[in-house]
Amino acid sequence: MNNSNSFNRLIEELKKLPGVGQKTAQRFAFFLLKMPADDAKAIARAVIDMKDKSKFCTVCNNITEEDPCWICRDANRDRSKILVVEEPSALYTIERTGGYKGLYHVMLGAISPLDGIGPEDIKVEGLMKRVEKNGVEEVILAMDPDMAGEATTMYLTRLIKPIGINVTRIAYGIPVGSDIEYADELTLVKSLEGRRGL
Amino acid sequence: MNNSNSFNRLIEELKKLPGVGQKTAQRFAFFLLKMPADDAKAIARAVIDMKDKSKFCTVCNNITEEDPCWICRDANRDRSKILVVEEPSALYTIERTGGYKGLYHVMLGAISPLDGIGPEDIKVEGLMKRVEKNGVEEVILAMDPDMAGEATTMYLTRLIKPIGINVTRIAYGIPVGSDIEYADELTLVKSLEGRRGL
Repeated sequence: MNNSNSFNRLIEELKKLPGVGQKTAQRFAFFLLKMPADDAKAIARAVIDMKDKSKFCTVCNNITEEDPCWICRDANRDRSKILVVEEPSALYTIERTGGYKGLYHVMLGAISPLDGIGPEDIKVEGLMKRVEKNGVEEVILAMDPDMAGEATTMYLTRLIKPIGINVTRIAYGIPVGSDIEYADELTLVKSLEGRRGL
Repeated sequence: MNNSNSFNRLIEELKKLPGVGQKTAQRFAFFLLKMPADDAKAIARAVIDMKDKSKFCTVCNNITEEDPCWICRDANRDRSKILVVEEPSALYTIERTGGYKGLYHVMLGAISPLDGIGPEDIKVEGLMKRVEKNGVEEVILAMDPDMAGEATTMYLTRLIKPIGINVTRIAYGIPVGSDIEYADELTLVKSLEGRRGL
């Protein structure tokens, strides 16, 4: 009926993006159609350019244009510590604080049996190789505080602790600046479990 | 901190899409990064291809690769009727029913003073030219049943009726197959207003 093939094909292509259905894909396509050609093509070129240049660091799975990534190459980082996160975005968030000077390992996911994601689907093997080879003294687990993060934390702890390496996890508790009154129950439980001597 | 420039630039470009903020842009970018290169580039190429080929029909503002569009060129269509819609998507929906054999005019918007959209921002001029020139007998208004659609309907009626052309609007009322009990008040009011003799 609609014989603008290039427009329909764009809608089909946009539907590949996560969470984008027919309606959203149509909205994006109309928006791109009304946009100046240069602006719309700049978006397209950014996709192509990213695919050509960006890749995952073969050491830590961080996103990088040079392999290994700038953190793995940095001689000033403390190579005895590996901080494990689920996604590169968590790595950036921690890097922004400037409070950590060790290395990272990005799992690119978390173990979630309900979603069919097992240990073989995330970057466990690469982590174990790093842990076994180098002079690593501590593995700090910083998974998201949810079921998948918890499962991943437990799995990695059981795997790494027997090698004789110190395994720690970041503290879950009351956020700084917030009110105990407004904290949810689970956070309060975690906060009590994580209490320290004064 | 993150020195994968192509990845960051992609996030910035994706944020140009409507309703896409930092979080969604990041999610799209990660998804594209993990995707096979061919699939990701197919999305990009679809954008470029659409911008190169698709345009608005200079007669009715439908989306088309050939100008005028396949509806405006079709000799079998009833040229005495013009059905006016806000967006091309409404045109496709009506075309799918197969119940209309006249021509269309897409306004590419609706009058909405609160959003700063006046008659000069939508395709009124082109419609008036068509209405005045050709043997048009009826203009059927099918704007969305909201405030902007109502304003556009009133504006166009006042403009076209004095020329001596029949102006009608599609019926707003209880959807076929639904329950009167669950209809909202405004739809019921419209449905009563639109009652017909039996």
